Amino acid sequence: MSPVDSLKVELGIRSYPILIADGLLGRPEIFEQHLRARELLIVSNTTVAPLYLPTLAASLGKRRVVEVILPDGEAHKTLANASRVLDVLIANRLARDCAVLALGGGVVGDLAGFAAACYQRGVDFVQLPTTLLAQVDSAVGGKTGVNHAGGKNLIGAFHQPVLVVADTATLATLPARELRAGLAEVIKYGLIADPALFAWLEDHLAELLAGDPAALAHIIRRSCEIKAAVVGRDEREQGERALLNLGHTFGHAIESATAYRDWLHGEAVGAGLVMAAAASTACGLLPQAEAERVRQLVKRAGLPTRIDSVMPAVALEHMRIDKKVQGGRLRLVLLRRIGEAFVTADYPPEALTRTLATHFGGAG
Amino acid sequence: MSPVDSLKVELGIRSYPILIADGLLGRPEIFEQHLRARELLIVSNTTVAPLYLPTLAASLGKRRVVEVILPDGEAHKTLANASRVLDVLIANRLARDCAVLALGGGVVGDLAGFAAACYQRGVDFVQLPTTLLAQVDSAVGGKTGVNHAGGKNLIGAFHQPVLVVADTATLATLPARELRAGLAEVIKYGLIADPALFAWLEDHLAELLAGDPAALAHIIRRSCEIKAAVVGRDEREQGERALLNLGHTFGHAIESATAYRDWLHGEAVGAGLVMAAAASTACGLLPQAEAERVRQLVKRAGLPTRIDSVMPAVALEHMRIDKKVQGGRLRLVLLRRIGEAFVTADYPPEALTRTLATHFGGAG
Repeated sequence: MSPVDSLKVELGIRSYPILIADGLLGRPEIFEQHLRARELLIVSNTTVAPLYLPTLAASLGKRRVVEVILPDGEAHKTLANASRVLDVLIANRLARDCAVLALGGGVVGDLAGFAAACYQRGVDFVQLPTTLLAQVDSAVGGKTGVNHAGGKNLIGAFHQPVLVVADTATLATLPARELRAGLAEVIKYGLIADPALFAWLEDHLAELLAGDPAALAHIIRRSCEIKAAVVGRDEREQGERALLNLGHTFGHAIESATAYRDWLHGEAVGAGLVMAAAASTACGLLPQAEAERVRQLVKRAGLPTRIDSVMPAVALEHMRIDKKVQGGRLRLVLLRRIGEAFVTADYPPEALTRTLATHFGGAG
Repeated sequence: MSPVDSLKVELGIRSYPILIADGLLGRPEIFEQHLRARELLIVSNTTVAPLYLPTLAASLGKRRVVEVILPDGEAHKTLANASRVLDVLIANRLARDCAVLALGGGVVGDLAGFAAACYQRGVDFVQLPTTLLAQVDSAVGGKTGVNHAGGKNLIGAFHQPVLVVADTATLATLPARELRAGLAEVIKYGLIADPALFAWLEDHLAELLAGDPAALAHIIRRSCEIKAAVVGRDEREQGERALLNLGHTFGHAIESATAYRDWLHGEAVGAGLVMAAAASTACGLLPQAEAERVRQLVKRAGLPTRIDSVMPAVALEHMRIDKKVQGGRLRLVLLRRIGEAFVTADYPPEALTRTLATHFGGAG
């Protein structure tokens, strides 16, 4: 068996481990050791459940297990589906000392986590991420929620998991498109905190795209390290944690303007990173050559760098309802250089206008 | 103007004041001093809004104010109505630095607080309780939530208000039935923490039922003191706070078995207190004479002491889905004497069976 790589998110009595290794879902001792609850609800989707639910169930021993299988895709991350999960918890009379397990990608994790946060005012929650995006980003940090027709993740809660189990073997069945989407968040970590990681991605992109296990394990470990440190210092996004939203205000606008149906979240973030870099350059902050490195890496990762089907004015409208508006001003995460980001509402409005005009519909 | 009585719930950076006085809703300086947000959503109901919303709105100055008026009653404390409040927040694009104000009783406060907890993962929340029950109990402490057909408050969040404004003038328009319902929670405070308060209620019940402002101000102040202290020591109900549920496991069973349509919450709690006292006697804990004092005070307050329309087996079924079940055992709050309560799952099952048999349908 491969050795288990273990990290910790330090949040006092709510600290929790992140376990990373090949084949973890099939190892009963992992759950025996780390999972206290005897009654479980597993939330998964129609794509992931047939692949990994039997393996997981076999590892859970004599615990009582109830399942909810949701349709796959961001368009299903709705309050109606969270309500469906709550109905199942209540119909099966799971008690306050139960745990909700999310087996799937970011959609399943965000939605199941929100249901766990609301059920009986909060029950234990376990993240079992099966996509690269979830393993490097969304499964860690306690942001849960659902989308609304009016905007991305507008309904949600901070609810930390008690355990994150990233079984890297699940990436072997991950479609190439999903793998690329996950890389967007890894590029983000390089941009906000680690220029060496960014350079490493530039050098090892081919191995990653080929699904090389060692290369993937490296970026999962490094991404979780960065995210765990940021979340440990600023759980509720009073400050530093907002840096993790680099590219996301643009990305969320793309997702909500397209009704969550066209692009994967990571694809929208990929384009969003290019836009954030372009806006930083337009503000006179990021050298043009560095913005070009961002664009090139996103493009080589097979991710979009612009979107033609949404007009700039529509994008701006969607950005205004994003959670980053405070005191009437839209805050952006901008780059000073690769590896250094900051949050500001104090930028020339035309820098944003120009970025939208050159990266959304109608431009060349 | 009457002097403002001020208490504080001590929760570190999330501490907040409880202001109690006659006419507070009509005093703009109260909101100028204590309310930071410039964009507000007021949630109220069809009974309270016509009486107090114009006064409140006039006190809010130049702030942007949006309103949602819900139907009145516990049967409307649903996820569907919380979703409606969220729709209004999103449709009006209220930003993360907005505040949600609950103007009404416990139903409005619980539901609006839950919407505030979920909107953008948590926005500021202000309690403006207009019923005795809300002023003495539900507006303080941060428990928010909605009911489910399967059980009371099964969906919710801990989300503390930033401010509680108890305008005692609103009690002048409160129906007698609602006033009595509020007294149930005050009796509860006497039973769990303050035998002198219990004795004071026995001596001054007539003044309270007549709506005497000084007597009401006394019990609101004392109830808030007790609740603020308990919540300050145990915000998330890891221990002591569970004592505040005295009578509520029985009461919740009554409410959910009758689909939240027949009894007010305080009426169900009144009967629940009598049942908790009877169960305590059946366990050989509370002297019979003290249980009889409880029953007499609840009865003199004009509250029910038993329920005929629900059968014991049905009540037990509803108790089993209440949030107090852990490790397969239903925990109860029991009394050792008036003024001393404790939580236990270690009681003779027949004590519970006997209590249900003598206080629910089919008994004499």
